[in-house]
Formats: sequence, C-alpha cells, structure tokens
Amino acid sequence: MTALILVVDDVPANVKLLEAKLLGEYYDVITAKDGFEAIDQARKHKPDIILLDVMMPGMDGFETCRRLKDDPDTSHIPVVMVTALNEKADRVNGLEAGADDFTTKPVNDAALFARIKSLVRIKVLMDEIRLRDKTGADMGIISNGENSFTADVSGSKIILIDDDIAQGKHLFDKLSEYYTVTLVDNPSEVESTIEQNRGAIDLLIISTQLADFDGLRLASHMRNMDAVRNIPIIMLIEEDDQRLMLKGLDLGINDYLLMPVDYNEMFARVKTQIRRRKYQEMLKANYQASISMAITDKLTGLYNRHYLDTHLQNTVTQSLQTKKPLSLLILDMDFFKLVNDTYGHDVGDEVLKQLSGMIIDATRSSDLIARIGGEEFMVVMPETDTLQAYDTAERIRRRVENSPFKISHADGFISKTVSIGVSTLNLHGDTVVDLAKRADLSLYDAKHTGRNRVLPQPASERPVVEKVDTGF
Amino acid sequence: MTALILVVDDVPANVKLLEAKLLGEYYDVITAKDGFEAIDQARKHKPDIILLDVMMPGMDGFETCRRLKDDPDTSHIPVVMVTALNEKADRVNGLEAGADDFTTKPVNDAALFARIKSLVRIKVLMDEIRLRDKTGADMGIISNGENSFTADVSGSKIILIDDDIAQGKHLFDKLSEYYTVTLVDNPSEVESTIEQNRGAIDLLIISTQLADFDGLRLASHMRNMDAVRNIPIIMLIEEDDQRLMLKGLDLGINDYLLMPVDYNEMFARVKTQIRRRKYQEMLKANYQASISMAITDKLTGLYNRHYLDTHLQNTVTQSLQTKKPLSLLILDMDFFKLVNDTYGHDVGDEVLKQLSGMIIDATRSSDLIARIGGEEFMVVMPETDTLQAYDTAERIRRRVENSPFKISHADGFISKTVSIGVSTLNLHGDTVVDLAKRADLSLYDAKHTGRNRVLPQPASERPVVEKVDTGF
Repeated sequence: MTALILVVDDVPANVKLLEAKLLGEYYDVITAKDGFEAIDQARKHKPDIILLDVMMPGMDGFETCRRLKDDPDTSHIPVVMVTALNEKADRVNGLEAGADDFTTKPVNDAALFARIKSLVRIKVLMDEIRLRDKTGADMGIISNGENSFTADVSGSKIILIDDDIAQGKHLFDKLSEYYTVTLVDNPSEVESTIEQNRGAIDLLIISTQLADFDGLRLASHMRNMDAVRNIPIIMLIEEDDQRLMLKGLDLGINDYLLMPVDYNEMFARVKTQIRRRKYQEMLKANYQASISMAITDKLTGLYNRHYLDTHLQNTVTQSLQTKKPLSLLILDMDFFKLVNDTYGHDVGDEVLKQLSGMIIDATRSSDLIARIGGEEFMVVMPETDTLQAYDTAERIRRRVENSPFKISHADGFISKTVSIGVSTLNLHGDTVVDLAKRADLSLYDAKHTGRNRVLPQPASERPVVEKVDTGF
Repeated sequence: MTALILVVDDVPANVKLLEAKLLGEYYDVITAKDGFEAIDQARKHKPDIILLDVMMPGMDGFETCRRLKDDPDTSHIPVVMVTALNEKADRVNGLEAGADDFTTKPVNDAALFARIKSLVRIKVLMDEIRLRDKTGADMGIISNGENSFTADVSGSKIILIDDDIAQGKHLFDKLSEYYTVTLVDNPSEVESTIEQNRGAIDLLIISTQLADFDGLRLASHMRNMDAVRNIPIIMLIEEDDQRLMLKGLDLGINDYLLMPVDYNEMFARVKTQIRRRKYQEMLKANYQASISMAITDKLTGLYNRHYLDTHLQNTVTQSLQTKKPLSLLILDMDFFKLVNDTYGHDVGDEVLKQLSGMIIDATRSSDLIARIGGEEFMVVMPETDTLQAYDTAERIRRRVENSPFKISHADGFISKTVSIGVSTLNLHGDTVVDLAKRADLSLYDAKHTGRNRVLPQPASERPVVEKVDTGF
C-alpha cells in the first residue's frame, strides 16, 4: 500500500538517505528539517506516516510528537521515532509521547518497511471511520470524538496467552497493577476463554514461543475469529527473531514486544493499543447513537414518523407477498390540548409517556408502535385481521378509560380517553396510502361520533369474535 | 493480512496442495468439494476469499460464482477462479460471472498471494462500510444497498493515461463505446486533468510503459492524491513483467491488464472495478442521507429540535469563551390550531412552510433556525445583542402580519400573526437552560398580553436603536 510519508531530521544527509529508500519503495515523501516545520507540514499535507528524528536542536522529537498528538488535526497520524540511541528510556519516552513505534539508526530497512505497511493498513481503516464520524460531527448530530491520547484506559480487559509459567505469572502480576487480566497458560483453552469474555476484550497478548502451538498461527487465527477480529494483538517474540516479527506485522498483528520484556515499554505499548481500540469503539458507538436517534421519538422512546413510513412500506410489501393479514391502528387522545392548557406542557408530556406505556402493554412485541404527531400514535400489526385488531384497540381504549394518569400537580390524577381508527390491508392490490387513509377516516368518524371509541366496529353492532368453521 | 480462505475443487489432491500452500502463509483454510458445498460453506463461514475451480461435475465454477454473486449474503466475497485452461474465453466467462480474478493451474504462488493480499485489503475496508450500512438498514433508516452486480455502469467516467499514440487511440475508441473517456497522452498533464474532473472520475487506467515517466510511480502517486485517493486504478503491464504486477498490487493498484489488451477481458475488468466503486459510493451516500435526515424537520426543511439542542449548547459555550453576544428568539404562530381545525392539516402545513420562508428571509445566513414544535420555531443569533435581536423579531412579526398566507382553499388567502420571545445570553455565567427559559417566559408574556408582539421590549417603551457614541 502506498503512502505519503513525512521525514523529519535536522541533518540533510539523513533526510536524503531515508527519502531515497522510501522513494525506491514507491512511497511519496515530504520532508522537514525541525519540529516546527514538521508540525506545519503535518497540518498542511496530512501525511500517512511521520518518521521523526529524536535529537533535533530547538524542539526535540519527543516534544514534537507530543504536540502532534495533542492536536486533533494531526493526532491520528502514526509517528515512528528514529533515534541514534538505543536506550530503553528513550524508547519508553517516545512511546509515552504518543509515538506508535521507533527505529534506531542505522535504519533496518525490512523492519521499517514492515512497520510502515502495518501502520498504513490500520490508518486506512481508521481514516474511513473518522471520515464518517466527522460527517456526523460537522452536522452536529454526534459530539466530536475526544482526543484518544488523553483517555484513561486502566481497568481494560487483557487476555494474556503464555504457557511459560514463570514469564506468564510475571507479566500477569505486572499488567494486573493497571488492567483486568486473564492468563491462559493452556493454548487449547484460548477459544473458550475468548468466547466467555466475548465483547469485553480490549487487547490480546500472545507469546509466539508456545511449547506445542505455533503462536503466530494462533495470533493469525484470532484475526479470523468473529469475537476478536478487531481486537488489537501484541505478540511476544524473541529478540533476534526478525523473520517472525516481519511475518507477524504482515499478518495484521498490531505490535510486538521483545522478550525478556521491558515492563515500561510494555505499559507504553499496551496503553497505545488500548487507546486506539477505545477511540475506534467510541467512533462506532457515536454512529449507532446517531442512527438510533434518527428513528426514535425523544419524548416517548417509541419509533418516530420517519421510521414508521419506511417500516410500514416494507411490512405492507411483505404482507402482499405472503398473503398474510396486516392491520393498522391510529390512536388519538381526546381533548389532549386541555391537559397542556390546564397544567402546562410538562404535565402533557407526562400523560403522553404514560399513554405510550399503556399502548405497549396492550400490544405484542411484534407490533410496531410509533408516535406520529403530538398526541397521535400508530400501531402496525402484522398477521392480524380486523377482528383481532379491533380487540387490541378496544383493550387499549378500555385501559386508558380505566387508568387515571398520574400528574405532577395538586390534582394528582386525571382521567383521559382515546379514539382509535382501525384498518386492515386488502390483500388484492391495496397500498400503504389506502391503508393509512382508511384508518385515518375511521379515527375521524370515531372523533365525530362521541370519542372514546374504536371504529370501524365489526359488522355486528357489538363485536363478536367469530371463528371460521373449518369443518371439524 | 491474514484471512479465511475457502478452497473449492472436486479433486482432493488439488485441494490438499492449495491448502498446504495457504496454511504455510498462515491463512485459515476451509474446503468444499463441489459448487453446492461451496455455497453452503460461503453462507455459513463468510470466508474472506474464495478460490474456485472452474471444471467441476454437477455445477461448474462459472455457475457457482454467479450464484454466489447473486446472493446478497455472499456477493461481497471476492472470488478467484482457478482453471487448468488458459483460454481467453474462459477468463472472460469467469469475470462476466462476477469473479474478481482468475489464476491458471499450475498456480503461480507469488501472483496468487499478491492477489489474495490485494483483495483482502480491499475487502477489510468494504466490510467496515457494509457493516455501517447494515446498521442503518436494520434500523430501517436507509434502504438496503442494491446488489452491485446488477448495476448499469455505462457512461461512467474513465481517465486513460497512455502516451503510446496507437494503443491509446485504440483503447480510447473501444472504451468510448460504453464509457465517457478522457485520454491523457502527456503524463505531465495528468494532475491538471484530474483536478478538472474532480468528483466525476470512476476509474483510472494507467499504462506502466510510459516513455519518460515511471507509470507505476504515477499510479502510486495517485493513491496519495486527495481527488482520486479512493478511485480504482487498473494498470496496463507487459505480459512477462511479473515484478511490476506484484509491486503494483502491493501498492494498492486494484487490477491489471496484460498488453496487448484483450478487449473482452478489459470490459469485464473495467465493469467489475466501476461497479465496486459505485457500490461503495452508494453506501456512503446512504450514510450522508441518514445523518441529514436525523437533523432536519421533514415539513419545513429547517433544523429539528435535536440538532438545535446540540448546536445551541456549542454556540453558548463559544459565546461565553469569546465574550461575544448571543441572542435567541422563540416564535409561535397565534391561534394556529384554528387553521388546522378550519381547513385541515394539509393547509396547516402550507402555512407553516410559508412561515418558515418568512423567518429565513428576515434573518442572516449565520443565524440558525429550527422548528421545535408544531407551530413553534427558534432562531439562534450569534454576535447579536438584545436590540439587534428585537429588530429582527419585529421584522419577522411585521412581515407575517402584512403578508397573507396563500392556501389551497376557496378562501385563497388567510392572515396570521406571530408572538415572539427574545432573550440574550448573560456573559457572566449564564446557561443554555436559563437563556431558553427567559425566551420562553417572554413568549408567554407576549401571548398573554395580546399576541402579535415581541417581548421583552427594550427599556424605553418604543424601541429606539441607540448607537454608542464612539467619540467621533
């Protein structure tokens, strides 16, 4: 996968060397000679990866990285620190500053390219999710995502897979200081452990040095398991095993730790992975919320008019295909305006909420209830004929008539009634508009013939549920 | 990137061989011995790639592919046909059946793995987009995506980059039979051509045999250009140049055609790429539509209550930070219920729409207008003090008073009035709730002191716009 890479170094020769290598791999390259220019370039060109020298005059790489990660416009761009030093402290400092990885000079080309590919692949997916979220945020429907680099991730759930008893125990103890850890020391129990924790896992750490299992294959297999497909994986590898490291990154493993594990580095890498995961989850949750908001009536929690329209059309189409009956109720509270005028809108809202509850109680879970106007509701009832629909409507009507509404006012309770129109789909070429219109007309008749009633009534004046004689 | 691969072949030895190779690359493998089993397995396990033998007893590979592509549950899974034949007709048949590529036995491992990687990479992104769309479709907010393999894509826009005059002309003529093609025979004009066609391009075809340009670098560079980042690219390569082909797929080029170009194969591959592109665009458009629906009042096209709440909170926060004034209008049509009761809801809707237009005309584009209830509207006015807000409110009030509403009824026109409450943010520790409450109370006063008026009025009984004496 190609990418635009920003190379930052104060020594022109270093820039040239890295640039040539990257161009040879068909990457596009831009450059900066110090931290300030790097921040400018990053904001302006939004590169896919930043290769950032640590030792620079003025602002060093750590500070540059920190500023890039603090800025919502650049915080999503992966940063790889490039340093002449191979001090553990520096590695941890870089990771703590928000860097995604580091590499030491002279640069190991294979390792660097493998890391770049891995980071670009993750970034492409994140860009897609971010773009979607930005659309929502621009339109004010969902709040802008918080900066992931400030999120507290302690208590997150980690599954640690390691059959080396001593090392597993040490890592477990260390990680447990901040996280909720499950140690799996028998690789054959991995799948069941994952199933048990499905939906709660934030990170997998997998040793590649298992006694009877190929750890890399296990990690690779996780990427194809539904339950953990999108969960970050850190693999534990031997310090000199570059082949395994390259293959792992290529397979989609997110990061690695060299054994014996440096705990500070482990904490830095674990935090980075979990934060990225949480950020991604937050973006997805925002989307879910925006969708669910778009179809819900805020006051009652019932479906809204828009959802009803879509759903009703689908249900009618289905009924016409399967030749199964479908009925509709339109329900309106009688003299609702009096409630608002007498007690105010807040009390009116209380009454509407209680009415919603009564409708829910009197219908089946397969019926769809929507609030379609101020005090007007619709119930869509699949597999329901006129008589059954009438029964349900009567049940609602009686229930409302006999259940006083509790209100926040000295009066304490008030009595209300509803009028209900019923219609049933004509299976020989009816339409949604016809169906709704008939229910509307019935409601109109109910309102103009005394209210607190259900119309149309069945043919006989008082409803009698007649069973069709099936010959038995 | 790892993947779950379904291998379909009626010869067990072939299955074993391919399975061993794939396992060696750390892929997860499942198998099927004929087309029927393949369809079952695909529906059940949703593999990432299907390697499908052509010559099988019962149902051959073409038919199996067609059925997989016709089924919405499996149509998104890339299919690579594996055939002993190297007939051009077979290649085209496979592509026409919806296959994404084909490979001939004996299988060239490097080419196959490069193609699998490329297809998996594209699929991961598409899965993400599909998942989002499915959420929306499940909740009924957006319609389910049509099957991309039935979409008509003729007339789509193709940019063809080829400086070989004869070949370029031939390809241009052929492609122009179905598509709108722009031929760029001077590679230095690529960027300007792309900019001119920004937003309209569906496919790029790039020759890798340019005289003075590295075509692969050009293609790779396109992947980093904003305007065409997500547009599919097909590269034209020499038949024996496997290195280029592997590198191209690795860089994210979507597909390739061997020169001299077989036109039938070209049409099949072009169609596949454009269809996939259109499908992706449709999914994204669905999302945009669902978001915009979620924040819009259906009747008037103004913002809805939900959007207002989010937006008002942000605006208040900003005003408190910048110490700039902010005012609010709440507007309610007087005796609106009479319109509904006298002329019906349809006429009521007509009146509300015209009222919306009057509010829009009397306010600035920087003001935000929302319909917050039946006949109730709110206007949020940044950088507006009480006097300015009062002026605007008066402008709306007079305008409504003096402009009869045109209605679909024998009466022709009716006159209506509005009452408006005004409030201004107190920059010393005010809240959204306080601000809205004050506007609400003002509206209440306006309603109970005769209607058709704006309250609060400025200190002097009649509003006089006083300019602050700035010393000049």
